[in-house]
Amino acid sequence: MQEKCGVVGVFLDEPKEENHAAISMYYALFALQHRGQESAGIVISKDKNMRIIKGMGLVPEVFNEHNLGDLKGTFGIGHVRYSTTGGSKLENGQPLIVEYRGGRIAIAHNGNLVNSKELRKKLESEGGIFLSTSDTEVIAHLLVKELMKSDITNAIRKMMRQLVGSYSLAILIDDTVIAVRDPLGFKPLCLGEMEGGYIVASESVAIDTLDGKFIRDIKPGEILILGGGRPVSHQVYKSQHTAHCVFEYIYFARTDSVLNGKMVYDVRRRIGETLVNEHAVDVDIVSPVPDSGVTFAIGYAIKSKIDYIESLIKNRYSSRTFILPGQEMREIAVRLKLNPVCSNVKDKKIVLIDDSIVRGTTAKRIVNSLKLKGAKEVHLRIGSPPIRYPCYLGIDMATRGELIASNRDVEGVGKLMGSDSIGYVSTDGLVESIGISSENLCMGCLTGIYPVQIPGEKCVIRQLTLAGVARG
Amino acid sequence: MQEKCGVVGVFLDEPKEENHAAISMYYALFALQHRGQESAGIVISKDKNMRIIKGMGLVPEVFNEHNLGDLKGTFGIGHVRYSTTGGSKLENGQPLIVEYRGGRIAIAHNGNLVNSKELRKKLESEGGIFLSTSDTEVIAHLLVKELMKSDITNAIRKMMRQLVGSYSLAILIDDTVIAVRDPLGFKPLCLGEMEGGYIVASESVAIDTLDGKFIRDIKPGEILILGGGRPVSHQVYKSQHTAHCVFEYIYFARTDSVLNGKMVYDVRRRIGETLVNEHAVDVDIVSPVPDSGVTFAIGYAIKSKIDYIESLIKNRYSSRTFILPGQEMREIAVRLKLNPVCSNVKDKKIVLIDDSIVRGTTAKRIVNSLKLKGAKEVHLRIGSPPIRYPCYLGIDMATRGELIASNRDVEGVGKLMGSDSIGYVSTDGLVESIGISSENLCMGCLTGIYPVQIPGEKCVIRQLTLAGVARG
Amino acid sequence: MQEKCGVVGVFLDEPKEENHAAISMYYALFALQHRGQESAGIVISKDKNMRIIKGMGLVPEVFNEHNLGDLKGTFGIGHVRYSTTGGSKLENGQPLIVEYRGGRIAIAHNGNLVNSKELRKKLESEGGIFLSTSDTEVIAHLLVKELMKSDITNAIRKMMRQLVGSYSLAILIDDTVIAVRDPLGFKPLCLGEMEGGYIVASESVAIDTLDGKFIRDIKPGEILILGGGRPVSHQVYKSQHTAHCVFEYIYFARTDSVLNGKMVYDVRRRIGETLVNEHAVDVDIVSPVPDSGVTFAIGYAIKSKIDYIESLIKNRYSSRTFILPGQEMREIAVRLKLNPVCSNVKDKKIVLIDDSIVRGTTAKRIVNSLKLKGAKEVHLRIGSPPIRYPCYLGIDMATRGELIASNRDVEGVGKLMGSDSIGYVSTDGLVESIGISSENLCMGCLTGIYPVQIPGEKCVIRQLTLAGVARG
Amino acid sequence: MQEKCGVVGVFLDEPKEENHAAISMYYALFALQHRGQESAGIVISKDKNMRIIKGMGLVPEVFNEHNLGDLKGTFGIGHVRYSTTGGSKLENGQPLIVEYRGGRIAIAHNGNLVNSKELRKKLESEGGIFLSTSDTEVIAHLLVKELMKSDITNAIRKMMRQLVGSYSLAILIDDTVIAVRDPLGFKPLCLGEMEGGYIVASESVAIDTLDGKFIRDIKPGEILILGGGRPVSHQVYKSQHTAHCVFEYIYFARTDSVLNGKMVYDVRRRIGETLVNEHAVDVDIVSPVPDSGVTFAIGYAIKSKIDYIESLIKNRYSSRTFILPGQEMREIAVRLKLNPVCSNVKDKKIVLIDDSIVRGTTAKRIVNSLKLKGAKEVHLRIGSPPIRYPCYLGIDMATRGELIASNRDVEGVGKLMGSDSIGYVSTDGLVESIGISSENLCMGCLTGIYPVQIPGEKCVIRQLTLAGVARG
Repeated sequence: MQEKCGVVGVFLDEPKEENHAAISMYYALFALQHRGQESAGIVISKDKNMRIIKGMGLVPEVFNEHNLGDLKGTFGIGHVRYSTTGGSKLENGQPLIVEYRGGRIAIAHNGNLVNSKELRKKLESEGGIFLSTSDTEVIAHLLVKELMKSDITNAIRKMMRQLVGSYSLAILIDDTVIAVRDPLGFKPLCLGEMEGGYIVASESVAIDTLDGKFIRDIKPGEILILGGGRPVSHQVYKSQHTAHCVFEYIYFARTDSVLNGKMVYDVRRRIGETLVNEHAVDVDIVSPVPDSGVTFAIGYAIKSKIDYIESLIKNRYSSRTFILPGQEMREIAVRLKLNPVCSNVKDKKIVLIDDSIVRGTTAKRIVNSLKLKGAKEVHLRIGSPPIRYPCYLGIDMATRGELIASNRDVEGVGKLMGSDSIGYVSTDGLVESIGISSENLCMGCLTGIYPVQIPGEKCVIRQLTLAGVARG
Repeated sequence: MQEKCGVVGVFLDEPKEENHAAISMYYALFALQHRGQESAGIVISKDKNMRIIKGMGLVPEVFNEHNLGDLKGTFGIGHVRYSTTGGSKLENGQPLIVEYRGGRIAIAHNGNLVNSKELRKKLESEGGIFLSTSDTEVIAHLLVKELMKSDITNAIRKMMRQLVGSYSLAILIDDTVIAVRDPLGFKPLCLGEMEGGYIVASESVAIDTLDGKFIRDIKPGEILILGGGRPVSHQVYKSQHTAHCVFEYIYFARTDSVLNGKMVYDVRRRIGETLVNEHAVDVDIVSPVPDSGVTFAIGYAIKSKIDYIESLIKNRYSSRTFILPGQEMREIAVRLKLNPVCSNVKDKKIVLIDDSIVRGTTAKRIVNSLKLKGAKEVHLRIGSPPIRYPCYLGIDMATRGELIASNRDVEGVGKLMGSDSIGYVSTDGLVESIGISSENLCMGCLTGIYPVQIPGEKCVIRQLTLAGVARG
Repeated sequence: MQEKCGVVGVFLDEPKEENHAAISMYYALFALQHRGQESAGIVISKDKNMRIIKGMGLVPEVFNEHNLGDLKGTFGIGHVRYSTTGGSKLENGQPLIVEYRGGRIAIAHNGNLVNSKELRKKLESEGGIFLSTSDTEVIAHLLVKELMKSDITNAIRKMMRQLVGSYSLAILIDDTVIAVRDPLGFKPLCLGEMEGGYIVASESVAIDTLDGKFIRDIKPGEILILGGGRPVSHQVYKSQHTAHCVFEYIYFARTDSVLNGKMVYDVRRRIGETLVNEHAVDVDIVSPVPDSGVTFAIGYAIKSKIDYIESLIKNRYSSRTFILPGQEMREIAVRLKLNPVCSNVKDKKIVLIDDSIVRGTTAKRIVNSLKLKGAKEVHLRIGSPPIRYPCYLGIDMATRGELIASNRDVEGVGKLMGSDSIGYVSTDGLVESIGISSENLCMGCLTGIYPVQIPGEKCVIRQLTLAGVARG
Repeated sequence: MQEKCGVVGVFLDEPKEENHAAISMYYALFALQHRGQESAGIVISKDKNMRIIKGMGLVPEVFNEHNLGDLKGTFGIGHVRYSTTGGSKLENGQPLIVEYRGGRIAIAHNGNLVNSKELRKKLESEGGIFLSTSDTEVIAHLLVKELMKSDITNAIRKMMRQLVGSYSLAILIDDTVIAVRDPLGFKPLCLGEMEGGYIVASESVAIDTLDGKFIRDIKPGEILILGGGRPVSHQVYKSQHTAHCVFEYIYFARTDSVLNGKMVYDVRRRIGETLVNEHAVDVDIVSPVPDSGVTFAIGYAIKSKIDYIESLIKNRYSSRTFILPGQEMREIAVRLKLNPVCSNVKDKKIVLIDDSIVRGTTAKRIVNSLKLKGAKEVHLRIGSPPIRYPCYLGIDMATRGELIASNRDVEGVGKLMGSDSIGYVSTDGLVESIGISSENLCMGCLTGIYPVQIPGEKCVIRQLTLAGVARG
């Protein structure tokens, strides 16, 4: 199952309060709320016991002063989740706790296993049963099997050998919080120091929120153990090349996060600048599609020296409304969300900037609404290359529906949008803006070439080397 | 984990509506609501797919017109649950659905496994993992293991061989609903015919509610398969003696149910009559502790020719209130729930009848409140023998707390209650009132002798014979 | 608007806690919950300020430990409400607080004004405006007008002169809680002493619940002022005859209440006995329709020496269920609520006893269900005379729908019910059972003759005398 | 009571659906949600009957597909409300419906009466009573009094003569929807044409949302009657000068609204430009405090030719979180809401722009957090002059707490904020940016001179003339 998620893990040596760890994770998950709005959970371990609170809804809907007060203990893990395929059930909520011969472990997962079906089948053929449809239960099964044969580090290493796909994990075993990142480093995961201890989290903003100090990214193929004192690292796999997801930079991560050493804000601004280089146009104003296009548009404005002015205002309550059926609902939905600013639109030539075009329905309506308000010209500039292929590694393009660019050239898209011109950033421009070489990025959705083997798809597999420290 | 629960299974050949099966189970579970108020669930199977709705709360709180409308299909199982030990979490809610090599199965369980811990340990030592703390997940593991080796009937039979304790099960496998009752028949389970098909349920009232026809009890050791047409029976185990739970008759089952061929109402009334024989007393009126003592008191009044008159009125909203802390809360709690009828109490000699005494705190307060309102004498008569031992088989005496009779003789209890006299029905009187011989009843909580081996407890094991039909 | 309600007022000289008054009213309203399940409210006065909590739902749904903690102060009034005509809006919730020249007053009302429309019209013609549709706002208008001209007692007296109909009021003015009962005493209202002070309430059970001491009924035409120390009484009106509502005794009040000096339980039991005298029948068992017929049936059994045995068991969760549309819903509704006890029904001659028959639909179904289960004979005995006329004074027969007896003789009703015989208690029998002479009762719904003038209806007006104490 | 609110009224000649009017108002209120998040209500009139739905919460929380379906009819009014002083009770929710001699009227009000207390006292001295604490009930009283003596237009005119303060009203009387704006035009109110009829609303965005056509502002002192066909206007009062609220332009209205002929976006951008003229500073980047400072900062950037770049990112879920007590909560609150973008802050000289400073606590923390992240210089520029005086006319500065500028000069504020410099826009600059002469604006909170008489405050009263059309 495809999941966009956020994970967090905290280990405190010197807690300020009995539930300091839980409160910290509450705030950290809140900072990661954009990574999953469907369910949230925190599990705390204390005296060999685990206590969990999880529920459907936003972080502040699941937790409250009262139930956080119950989560006493100095270490634990947390999760926010957005399942992209149907199964929005509490059963699939995370973290997942499992009981096995050695006691209990808890797992929080961000990513998507490409071989999840095969692993399930294999486990089922050995008599395994599954109570949920999540990848996490598969991971739990594999981990438990290895834990029965090896120590923790080796067990995790052996488990990793079987997993194909993306996974950034926070795991609770015995008296430790363990961070694991897949050998290609698809999804982000980072380490920070906070008052009283350490934190691992999907994005650096979680550390900022706790007034903590960002230390570094968890390395691809690394197992990092928080268990008191300084974190202990095991680099169990080495890959010549990584496969960082480009869409984390383009739209998924928060603008104020630093991923793999690159500030997201800078990447987006540089993309905006690159769009000027690649697709300059003579207009009166530069406007973003709010909020997704803002940073790109700022970059475009700075580089082009054209005024940055909003042509559309977003209703800040729009996420909470419902649209009645019938009533040309989609039209109303866009008007309720985005309203043109007449005086900035009328008789103006506008370059309108967004992060990406997936289905194109919203972009089409926006262009149309600007034209109706008297815009002389509307030029679309897009902060990503055309998305032409599905993602199998954690950003569900399925929910992003029919890809408008999958069977159309750029001009065809522009015509469909009703814009006077259209320009996507080039793949090279994107790579340069990110500042990481293309061999170290996953651009499967843009190029159709994936860094792991996917049945029916082209692939340039990254070579893995077993790193020195651990051996099984 | 000790659980009092209710199960139901429906298979329709000729449904009246698309969700006829789900609606029927909704009403049936509602009729079984007294067996579990904590959570409820229904799973429907259709086209190899299972659809489940479960949630915390009463049956009408979990289901509504809308979500029942989604449960289209002609067969399924349902469950109401009251967990007696802590774990009131949705994770433990039933029915439980598991995915295995052969697809999906769903299980609803009423009872308590005595060897659950051992089974868990064994399964864990083989690499099994558990996501919940319920017996049901243990049952699922065992069943799946056997299903990989045998056909359904034999798999269930082999699973049963490993289970020690009480279990009445409704199982959904492939295109069948299967009812299973443990070889000693601790917990009730019966079969009925309804419009369009068949139903199995914990108690006959569920069949009545659907205007169905009660056919018979599921026999101890029987596997009954509903799969279209007439149900198919496999008597896989035979025991010389059964072990029907006496407390189902005394307080757990509904008065209007028929269990093991005996109408509960008749049993309770006969107990009331027996109490006259065993503990006659010269009084003005016979009063029940409402609602639990009503039928016993009616029997007592008929036999003794003394007027049946209420001395206490129950506030019919009392289940919904909350009591503020402090404020001598327990005192208020009793007054809010039961209020004396002055004119029936003042200067009266009363025989007050209840089903059982567990902790004795409520009985004590009631006697006291009647005395305060001017009762001349209050004589307690109890519809069960003293409860002196724990139950390991599904009626959690742990939640019934410290047993007042465990280390006290009858007179000592009476004195503590402040009553002018006290009389429990005798074990013989109870057996005779039920109308089933004592070798065929489980009276562990009364005698301390259990029909299955329990570490540290006395036991008279029932001999099991492998019945003819199936062989593994 | 017709309303069945309960009112309460508390004044404490020596509170045990800051919110002792509010907590006491919470418990008292809970004891009066049967008088109104739609909304509840409590207002506390402190330092010239009033603080109110009111909401839709049952008492424990509206109040909680937290909001009761906010209601600090030593005196106040409360209300539970069931509106019988449509307007179940919070706007109509009580108590009602109004601000006027002299400050604020709060009013809680049980009853129904017959001349409410005329009073409204008059007040509107003087420029008055109304924000709700309740009688209470009319009462508030009148009271305020008089308060501007007179002292409190005289103002209330003058207000009473204008009101025609039933009203038992709890009023909060300045530093006093005032109980007012209309000169004919339609609706109950009584006084009790409790720990730390005094309480007035619709029924004595509210006093019992607080472990208080019942003192006496508020007299018809009396104004009783609780303001510290002993209550002060002003008997402002005297009527030669009262008009106590007979249906409070038959079905509305709680069995354990004492109204106008008569214990409800005794009245109902005597009615049961009277039914034996008036309509004896040779049967095997006496059964109630639970719960409404229980006390009547007990009386019948005692008098007739026939065994009291239940033939129908009530599902104690039935108030909470919902019935799906279609599905012969009414049939299911009865089965879900009342299930026959086979062994008590089969081949039995049964006298089935209920408090009253309004529409007759439920009775008809019950008789039918008993016959289907094999009852040889079913004889209906009813604890009230036939209801043939509407009530204008607070028990909305409109919601009780089409009166089956309004255009049918008794035999016709019996035939329609499918019973083998039917017997209503006679009016004389009823009056004797209550123990209050018929001139002092309101039996409008039975006789069509009302104690107040109602357009188009017969009337025997009670003569009012202005009592001595106050004069305006 | 001070209230910030939004009102709307719709009258359709040719509705597309039975509840077209209600649905339109639902969307319109949603567009006005920023004017009040506490409660919402819609009342529809049909066949002399009014039907209302109102409740606490956001527009989509109060309304749903189901209850909107009940609001059938072709005209009605609606309201969103934010009460600024305590009384966040449903009783005070709007629209308010009152019943009087002539039937029913409904009123929705935005504004604040300065003489509300006096009017209440006067009405109470005449025997009037009040059930709420809102100005709206006062208005209702006055209107009803006049309606008893005059026709609708004259009644409203006479009512207006008594009201001192701000009021934009939508009123439902008989078969008309009436818009009324106070003679000084404090609060906005405008007219639009929509599919099937006409709409009046607090801001033009409500019209945009419905894809309607903005026609014009309701004029100060105008009564506009929608009753089928073209709206009918009565200019009942004329004032030489108006008193449009400046804070509607600075922060209260939506950026994409047009008020009194001026586009809010343009005003805010011009203020930003004016800030460059008045307080230029040599910096690296221009950053807004999101979201309030965005448009001002854009204007500043354009004028100054300095790059517009965000130095703070707002967590878009921040409105929904809760902060635990203790825990240096305020600090965390700011971090949860606004996180610095390191690469834009470190070693940068920043001009940080916001709309206004009230208490200064947030601004102080933001400056501090930027400095901690390495900002070389932080210069504050503010889009309003210092707020030194309270507002009596609808924008509750009381909730904006202690005004930091009330007893401090500008430099003192800057020092307190920890900024390297501070610059407020001048009053002249503000007036010029708005484009309306200062005699036609209300700037009481800035100058301490109010356009209506307020006890203890300075005043330059606008002269009112009775306009020709109507006469009483």
